[in-house]
Amino acid sequence: MKSDLDQLLRDDHADALWATGPAQHNPAVVYLTGGGHMTAADVFKKVGEEPVLCHAPMERDEAARTGLKTLNFSKFPLKERLAFAEGDHLVASALLNKYILEEIGLTSGKVLVYGRTQVGKFYSILKKLEEMLPGLSFEGDINDAVLLQAMATKDVDEIERIRAMGKVVTTVVSRVAAFLTGHAVEDEILMKPDGTPLLIGDVKGKINLWLAESGAENPEDTIFAIGRDAGVPHSSGTPTDALRLGQTIVFDIFPCEKGGGYFYDFTRTWCLGYAPDEAIQLYESVKGVYHQVVSELEAGKNAAHFQNRTCELFEDLGHQTPRKNPGTEEGYVHSLGHGLGLNVHEKPWFSRADDPTNSLVPGSVFTIEPGLYYPDKGMGVRLEDTYYVTHDGKFGKFVDYPMNLVLPMK
Amino acid sequence: MKSDLDQLLRDDHADALWATGPAQHNPAVVYLTGGGHMTAADVFKKVGEEPVLCHAPMERDEAARTGLKTLNFSKFPLKERLAFAEGDHLVASALLNKYILEEIGLTSGKVLVYGRTQVGKFYSILKKLEEMLPGLSFEGDINDAVLLQAMATKDVDEIERIRAMGKVVTTVVSRVAAFLTGHAVEDEILMKPDGTPLLIGDVKGKINLWLAESGAENPEDTIFAIGRDAGVPHSSGTPTDALRLGQTIVFDIFPCEKGGGYFYDFTRTWCLGYAPDEAIQLYESVKGVYHQVVSELEAGKNAAHFQNRTCELFEDLGHQTPRKNPGTEEGYVHSLGHGLGLNVHEKPWFSRADDPTNSLVPGSVFTIEPGLYYPDKGMGVRLEDTYYVTHDGKFGKFVDYPMNLVLPMK
Repeated sequence: MKSDLDQLLRDDHADALWATGPAQHNPAVVYLTGGGHMTAADVFKKVGEEPVLCHAPMERDEAARTGLKTLNFSKFPLKERLAFAEGDHLVASALLNKYILEEIGLTSGKVLVYGRTQVGKFYSILKKLEEMLPGLSFEGDINDAVLLQAMATKDVDEIERIRAMGKVVTTVVSRVAAFLTGHAVEDEILMKPDGTPLLIGDVKGKINLWLAESGAENPEDTIFAIGRDAGVPHSSGTPTDALRLGQTIVFDIFPCEKGGGYFYDFTRTWCLGYAPDEAIQLYESVKGVYHQVVSELEAGKNAAHFQNRTCELFEDLGHQTPRKNPGTEEGYVHSLGHGLGLNVHEKPWFSRADDPTNSLVPGSVFTIEPGLYYPDKGMGVRLEDTYYVTHDGKFGKFVDYPMNLVLPMK
Repeated sequence: MKSDLDQLLRDDHADALWATGPAQHNPAVVYLTGGGHMTAADVFKKVGEEPVLCHAPMERDEAARTGLKTLNFSKFPLKERLAFAEGDHLVASALLNKYILEEIGLTSGKVLVYGRTQVGKFYSILKKLEEMLPGLSFEGDINDAVLLQAMATKDVDEIERIRAMGKVVTTVVSRVAAFLTGHAVEDEILMKPDGTPLLIGDVKGKINLWLAESGAENPEDTIFAIGRDAGVPHSSGTPTDALRLGQTIVFDIFPCEKGGGYFYDFTRTWCLGYAPDEAIQLYESVKGVYHQVVSELEAGKNAAHFQNRTCELFEDLGHQTPRKNPGTEEGYVHSLGHGLGLNVHEKPWFSRADDPTNSLVPGSVFTIEPGLYYPDKGMGVRLEDTYYVTHDGKFGKFVDYPMNLVLPMK
């Protein structure tokens, strides 16, 4: 939680953190500011002190709304910095940050740097800044030991925001199911009222629309993949593909609150009308593993334990897994899940058996999403829900939704 | 244009460029790949050679769709890199890039780095990589001399995609106008059918919905600001503010193609029902300056020339400007415009009089958006359209839309 930040900084022997970039679609800055329409924001937090938000002059109202202590870039005008830097824009940019760091009294020690913005320019600026303030060193938090660690345990408000997004998701998913099954069928292909086939692109248009109606957005494309595409986990689907009966459709939807807030992540696999035997078999295997793993969830255990267990279960059923065959593109080919919050993927990581900070603890929010993929057979199955750990170590699913494979046509 | 990249790299004495990050909402990678559902992509382009796209194993289909030469990260498995790095995740991450650079034969020279991703981690990785491959040096393109310079001149296809987004925008704007003026009014406040006031938040919900319906998205919040908020250029508006007659509303809408494609940028200022004399006066001043500056546009001239000219015109009318009073928060407080493409703000910059690469030339796409702001009087006016320069040096506006200040209530 945010209140852990000081201790986590101390444990990491860091003196401060710096989160940079826009205040939307940028989890580090959103977490520290609450978001807002700021195209450029820099948040500095020294150990034991409140954060300071530096902002552009035109964005002073948005900055003030965050309730943080603020510092207006206009205090250090570009024109004068450029004159001092003899026209060198790199030096002028570094000077802005130098003046800010001096203003807030952060001129020595280790500073952890966060935020999503232009990596190349920032690389040059940080190097220049290290020359200007040789007592300072900047580092990326490669092991996610501080900010992502704080973000990994959610408070009650965050849990409820994620649940609200879960309700948006299941509402949209049920609208999609009703939309699909309401179509006429000709030669196993779903037909629109205008007599042309219903395409993946049409379905995605509806998904985007219904998400927007609910105040959500999907910054990354929704996965709605049929047939062979369903057999490739991150194929988002081919917009010109027609919807056909009897083919596996992997529908993986992971929107967030408008402006880049909390995410939800959810997957169902459907066959329209009927399912071939082979698809039913895959589906039953995935569903069995899903329920087995969920029944074994236990607070305090490392997330990687459950990935390992999932591999074991799939191997027993005769499938390839990344444990037995790293890099396999058939069978079970990914992780059991991932943490989720302001990032669609965050701690706990299910891949780091060596790292005790990836345990499932009160406040953890994570997905459970076993899957089986056979692209050459033209099919794939994935089932996913998002879970959390309560303050007393129990596991809760945010929202319920049926898992049926077959959606009968109306 | 993309075909200029080799010459621009040579002119900058660079040996290659590297664009990193996801393939959506990341202009550098979108420009080089065409976009797609790739959560991690690295594009390397050596001078005189075709780009190579490195991708995650699960995203191989999306990578293949780009038509670029591809390289699968699975060729360099994490497990083996981690073992070699003795569990050090920083070294393991740097090693992936080292192996890729060796594979594509890029182990010495100057590499320009682009893309939006996690700046802190990338800083540490690039520093480690420079240690591992001492012949290589990484730099940010601080002056936007290469990739942004190529992107600054659009080809015919890009111009038409921007125009299509302009049509989406004006369609949505006219729907918003019809929606607003269709409301009942009580005591100067617009009322919903349920008897409660119509709020800014309600209007924004409709905007998001209608954008989604058109296949567009607004990654940053639309500005729909009334009264004092309209007097602060980047205030996006207060969701709980009611819509009132006779107050200036600044409506600045800048969506892009779904997934982070080409943008359009457009602003109108409205008063519902009637406009106070002071607002009319501001509006007439802004409109006059807009038309004067547009009539003076001339290919080959530096964009900053027109910012300077705009300051002159506003000063003649008795307003503060950033030229006379840098940092002013009243009067004309920003730039006349900015280039636009896969970034909502890009070259040509209107602020760099010293830099001849910011001239208006065939293929330039840019906004013209003079404004006047008086937050203490509770009002602001901005008028904005997006323009382009044709191959024979003429200026075109992408789409037309009326500029009226007053929207009469129906």
